[in-house]
Amino acid sequence: MRPVEDLDTPAVLVDLDVLERNIATMAGRARAAGVRLRPHAKTHKVPEIGRMQLAAGAAGLSLAKVGEAEVFVDAGFDDIFLAYPVVGAEKARRLLALGDRARLAIGADSEEGVRAVAGAFHAAGRSIDVLLKVDSGFRRVGVEPEAAPETARRLAGMPGVSLRGVFTHAGHAYLESTPGGVAAVGSSEGETLAAVADAVRHAGVPMEEVSVGSTPSAPHAMTAPGVTECRPGNYVYHDASQVSLGVCAERDCALTVLATVVSVPAADRAVLDAGSKTLSSDALRPTPGGHGFLMGRRSRLARLSEEHGVIAVEPGERFRVGERVFVLPNHACVVSNLHDVVYGVRGGRIEAEWRVAARGKVA
Amino acid sequence: MRPVEDLDTPAVLVDLDVLERNIATMAGRARAAGVRLRPHAKTHKVPEIGRMQLAAGAAGLSLAKVGEAEVFVDAGFDDIFLAYPVVGAEKARRLLALGDRARLAIGADSEEGVRAVAGAFHAAGRSIDVLLKVDSGFRRVGVEPEAAPETARRLAGMPGVSLRGVFTHAGHAYLESTPGGVAAVGSSEGETLAAVADAVRHAGVPMEEVSVGSTPSAPHAMTAPGVTECRPGNYVYHDASQVSLGVCAERDCALTVLATVVSVPAADRAVLDAGSKTLSSDALRPTPGGHGFLMGRRSRLARLSEEHGVIAVEPGERFRVGERVFVLPNHACVVSNLHDVVYGVRGGRIEAEWRVAARGKVA
Repeated sequence: MRPVEDLDTPAVLVDLDVLERNIATMAGRARAAGVRLRPHAKTHKVPEIGRMQLAAGAAGLSLAKVGEAEVFVDAGFDDIFLAYPVVGAEKARRLLALGDRARLAIGADSEEGVRAVAGAFHAAGRSIDVLLKVDSGFRRVGVEPEAAPETARRLAGMPGVSLRGVFTHAGHAYLESTPGGVAAVGSSEGETLAAVADAVRHAGVPMEEVSVGSTPSAPHAMTAPGVTECRPGNYVYHDASQVSLGVCAERDCALTVLATVVSVPAADRAVLDAGSKTLSSDALRPTPGGHGFLMGRRSRLARLSEEHGVIAVEPGERFRVGERVFVLPNHACVVSNLHDVVYGVRGGRIEAEWRVAARGKVA
Repeated sequence: MRPVEDLDTPAVLVDLDVLERNIATMAGRARAAGVRLRPHAKTHKVPEIGRMQLAAGAAGLSLAKVGEAEVFVDAGFDDIFLAYPVVGAEKARRLLALGDRARLAIGADSEEGVRAVAGAFHAAGRSIDVLLKVDSGFRRVGVEPEAAPETARRLAGMPGVSLRGVFTHAGHAYLESTPGGVAAVGSSEGETLAAVADAVRHAGVPMEEVSVGSTPSAPHAMTAPGVTECRPGNYVYHDASQVSLGVCAERDCALTVLATVVSVPAADRAVLDAGSKTLSSDALRPTPGGHGFLMGRRSRLARLSEEHGVIAVEPGERFRVGERVFVLPNHACVVSNLHDVVYGVRGGRIEAEWRVAARGKVA
């Protein structure tokens, strides 16, 4: 096995010990809470890592786009929830083809949105499993909790739709600045969605699945009575944002970017060969502050161009041209989407070279 | 030829009439100024578009990474300047292999930085063309103007180095909020670099090439006496940032993203199937303000998640689920790097489907 030093830079490294521990920890949490774990595989987009999640007890995977589902079904996965409103005739056609090979479900928050997919499945004499998206406070997609019973009744009445439950994603957990705030959002997420499911049932529509999400909120949301499933994604890798949120420590972060100092044009400035093309421009959450941590250093990445990561060198630190550094990115999921390959590393040796097979599947 | 309506979304469209006009306009400017045009192909990463630039009179291409040069040399390009400090033994090895098939030059701003490449070429009995990077005010990489003669003398004395000139990139033009400010940065860029070249010559080091860059600054920098070459990149596509800078109008923007409204959960909110995975998180320049213009609409993309573009719907405007919109991104170059394919469109028909062959070449 090659040593990490042999890799050209920039390169995305995945610490296998940390990855395995993160996968086991979340699987254990879900088991303890008595809920199914359906990790969002957008974080890694790597079938090999999805298999590790299933082996640890995950019930299936979550994804967002039909193109991602195609990659994972081709890789042998047979139970996928597209936690996204899948809209339009072309995606309906592709989903129908996939439906022969896997158990599929999709998200929806309107009749108009699900009409093409429902119509295609109905015309083929089949139905598609649908979960109604509920807004638990993120204000992105999803119906308001009070509108859920009426929308659920209408969706359940559509030919081609098999309405199985409700789901939500408390993305606003990423805006909380204390662990207590994150926990409160998580608890509210679980309790809100369980109450919505009860209200829908009360309106005469059966609800099997009550599915919550997000790495910061998951441990708090999954323990709410009535929740049946949890869909965290980022936890496999973690990142600088999770550290800043207090969700984990730096030692729990599996993904780093190995980069080289290519220029030290001034005493207070050094430049890496990793810019936004490698790290993305995503801000640190909850409070913006640089473009990634430099492991073992106090200096931060102050700004990025596409191919340049500009370090504001702290007094007392020095960087030299040719030196290598490990960057902990602000947001691991988007880093995955920028790279064709990630390297699984253990004890300084490259144990795996994984293709990010579902990278760039935008549609 | 298929109509654009047949495309699934999100999809990246390139208006061929606008693309051809942009290429011709910049080529005409360079001709009029009497300088060579060496467009930075990072903007498109598409060999077919590079060929259009050469056909319009470009002398060669600029790129940043060895992996990009490999793609373009494989596609038949034989004159490439890597406008980047190329550091390290592995890149040196790959460059040496490429050097058999193309005329190559690289950037450098230190002896340490260029040592591996120079050593590899010298050991093979050859030399690599090098341009010294000068900082004309962007404060990223490059030596200070006053340090250029001494660094140039040292680089010129390194075995394996053939020092051919100086180059700069006035990226700080993107921080200017008026066309006059942009013009002033451009003029200063050209004059500063020409003066540096004279000072280096005065120190006894010959300088053939005096190369300036950036789409906003190019028209102003290329007319400075002594400038020999210009390296704008973004001009082929333009984007919302160029419009905001006053560099061009919306009708000069060739690249747009076709997206679908997938959710309208509230009267003041609509959600597109294009998020940061499609548009990137790059901010509008010079003044941040949303994540892209919606063509023909007043509403803006207020926030992005990876797969969601959240529109803040202006009073009086309405979006419906299933409707398609054209998004003018903040930054076209990074959009190219997120997609495997772009579609060349004319008169509503798809005339070309181009692979973004140099996408994701980070090393």
